[in-house]
Amino acid sequence: MKALVYHGPGQKSLDERPMPEIAAPTDAIIKVTRTTICGTDLHILKGDVPSCQPGRILGHEGVGIVEQVGGAVAAFKPGDHVLISCISSCGKCDACRRGMYSHCATGGWILGHRIDGTQAEYVRIPHADTSLYPVPQGVEEEALVMLSDILPTGFECGVLNGKVQPGSTVAIVGAGPIGLAALLTAQFYAPAQIVMIDRDPNRLEVAQTFGASACIDIARADPVAEIMTLTDGAGVDCAIEAVGVPATFELCQAIVAAGGTIANVGVHGVKADLHLETLWDRNITITTRLVDTVSTPMLLKTVRAGRLAPMKLITHHFRLDDIMNAYDTFGRAAETGALKVIIEAA
Amino acid sequence: MKALVYHGPGQKSLDERPMPEIAAPTDAIIKVTRTTICGTDLHILKGDVPSCQPGRILGHEGVGIVEQVGGAVAAFKPGDHVLISCISSCGKCDACRRGMYSHCATGGWILGHRIDGTQAEYVRIPHADTSLYPVPQGVEEEALVMLSDILPTGFECGVLNGKVQPGSTVAIVGAGPIGLAALLTAQFYAPAQIVMIDRDPNRLEVAQTFGASACIDIARADPVAEIMTLTDGAGVDCAIEAVGVPATFELCQAIVAAGGTIANVGVHGVKADLHLETLWDRNITITTRLVDTVSTPMLLKTVRAGRLAPMKLITHHFRLDDIMNAYDTFGRAAETGALKVIIEAA
Repeated sequence: MKALVYHGPGQKSLDERPMPEIAAPTDAIIKVTRTTICGTDLHILKGDVPSCQPGRILGHEGVGIVEQVGGAVAAFKPGDHVLISCISSCGKCDACRRGMYSHCATGGWILGHRIDGTQAEYVRIPHADTSLYPVPQGVEEEALVMLSDILPTGFECGVLNGKVQPGSTVAIVGAGPIGLAALLTAQFYAPAQIVMIDRDPNRLEVAQTFGASACIDIARADPVAEIMTLTDGAGVDCAIEAVGVPATFELCQAIVAAGGTIANVGVHGVKADLHLETLWDRNITITTRLVDTVSTPMLLKTVRAGRLAPMKLITHHFRLDDIMNAYDTFGRAAETGALKVIIEAA
Repeated sequence: MKALVYHGPGQKSLDERPMPEIAAPTDAIIKVTRTTICGTDLHILKGDVPSCQPGRILGHEGVGIVEQVGGAVAAFKPGDHVLISCISSCGKCDACRRGMYSHCATGGWILGHRIDGTQAEYVRIPHADTSLYPVPQGVEEEALVMLSDILPTGFECGVLNGKVQPGSTVAIVGAGPIGLAALLTAQFYAPAQIVMIDRDPNRLEVAQTFGASACIDIARADPVAEIMTLTDGAGVDCAIEAVGVPATFELCQAIVAAGGTIANVGVHGVKADLHLETLWDRNITITTRLVDTVSTPMLLKTVRAGRLAPMKLITHHFRLDDIMNAYDTFGRAAETGALKVIIEAA
């Protein structure tokens, strides 16, 4: 089969690889129909994720058809149309019993990282009963690819951890796919304001059409001053960090209101300064989280009910044969305007 | 009247000062019977709190008798025996309506800071109806001085923010009065372990008698290795920072388990490193808080019921006339073994 293989920092190619096989009775083999590329895949290609070794098939998002199941798989059978979660979870360990699937003792984020991933014609999914979801009738398949990772990530790590509530003031720092996923799902809770902060005017224009109440281009305006004007000097109840660099995390510290929350979503490679000298008495909360995908069933219902429109996030389509171009388009997002690119594998 | 007055960094004296007067109809004048000294008073004396100006009478803890009330005070009358909260709160502003009394628009921590405090024969208490509490019958008066600040601080900022629950593993970094207050109140929730970490063997001995399940002397052992041994390599569900320096805050980051909480209680003067490069995917929560004293009525009930023994925290007694010696004893706690010193003002 064809598969996009990581060959070490800066190196990848579309290779011919053997079909995956059932390795444990809880495994399923999925024929991938659609997948996508994540910012995390670019991190791996930069060499930022040393736990991902050369030879690995990348990709942790996708939708497909069950091809084969192990003897212990009870919830799915060949022919079922399924959504693949970016998080594999056994459902049985201490972390899973707490709903913290991201820290499953034999799962977590392993797909396209520690085991071969979804940017291929077929993929082996461990713990299939608790790591796949049935695709509901009447929903566009490619919309669901957005539910493998970015929508639960924006929602759980940003909106839920950020305690967005009716009447809240929210700032989202970073208008990439994850920041936009937080923007879309924050609107479930009727916040008073959602202010998007970025340096890419194209992404801010998209954010405006996605329901942002205001946008701040940090190349043109001081975001702290703008936020203080928008919030009568109080700052925001919830600052969602969706970039992953020290400067944006520090910006969140400068704009959060007393009693507010900084919900970190970004993947960070280095430490940041925490200004405890000004924050110690401000009654704030800072959260970090690797998505648990506990909200996937709920998000599927919102898509089916028309309360969430993931299709908005999709800007480009490619065939698996053309995935090298898809990476190029996604990697040059500032020029191409790419948000999420759909890869049609079958 | 006699009062302990701050005269700028490093300078204080017991001075003769005019009696306070009712300045607003919501004020009460309290004849102070017992007060104490807080670590925060030492911070002020070091010059760390520039918002506290020379000429200020220090002290934000105490118990006394109502001497006089303004026309709008409804809950108290002259002769009532009252506990003074370190936090003054109007009960009416947005912050108070959220229970965040620490950020009251016309209150918060003002006593012995922005207005004259309790280390005096008399003190003016603004917003008296919502900043004083009736002293229950049958409770030692000096025990209640511990409820003005340190017990609600250890409880709200440490135990509640740290989400201590039955079966939790808890580490408290710093075995001073605040850390010990957290140790006493954490036991309400039947955690599995409470490990105290400090560098003062005397304080760790006290912690052992207060119910710590283990103590780590960081002068003798590597606290990270010890915690990992005690928690089967997981780290603690709750790390309470009760010192207020970067090293202890960073220690909390090294010992917190995935899914755990770092509850900051310490007063910090400088920034700290936040290791987002290791914490971004660990599902942790970091909280800061200035005590709101929302738990004061509940804590009064636990004292009255014998579930909390604040007397344990009191090591020394002085008369107000001798408060300069009290400061000296409290300031040299490592030598004197002082935890909380009671000042008898009347």
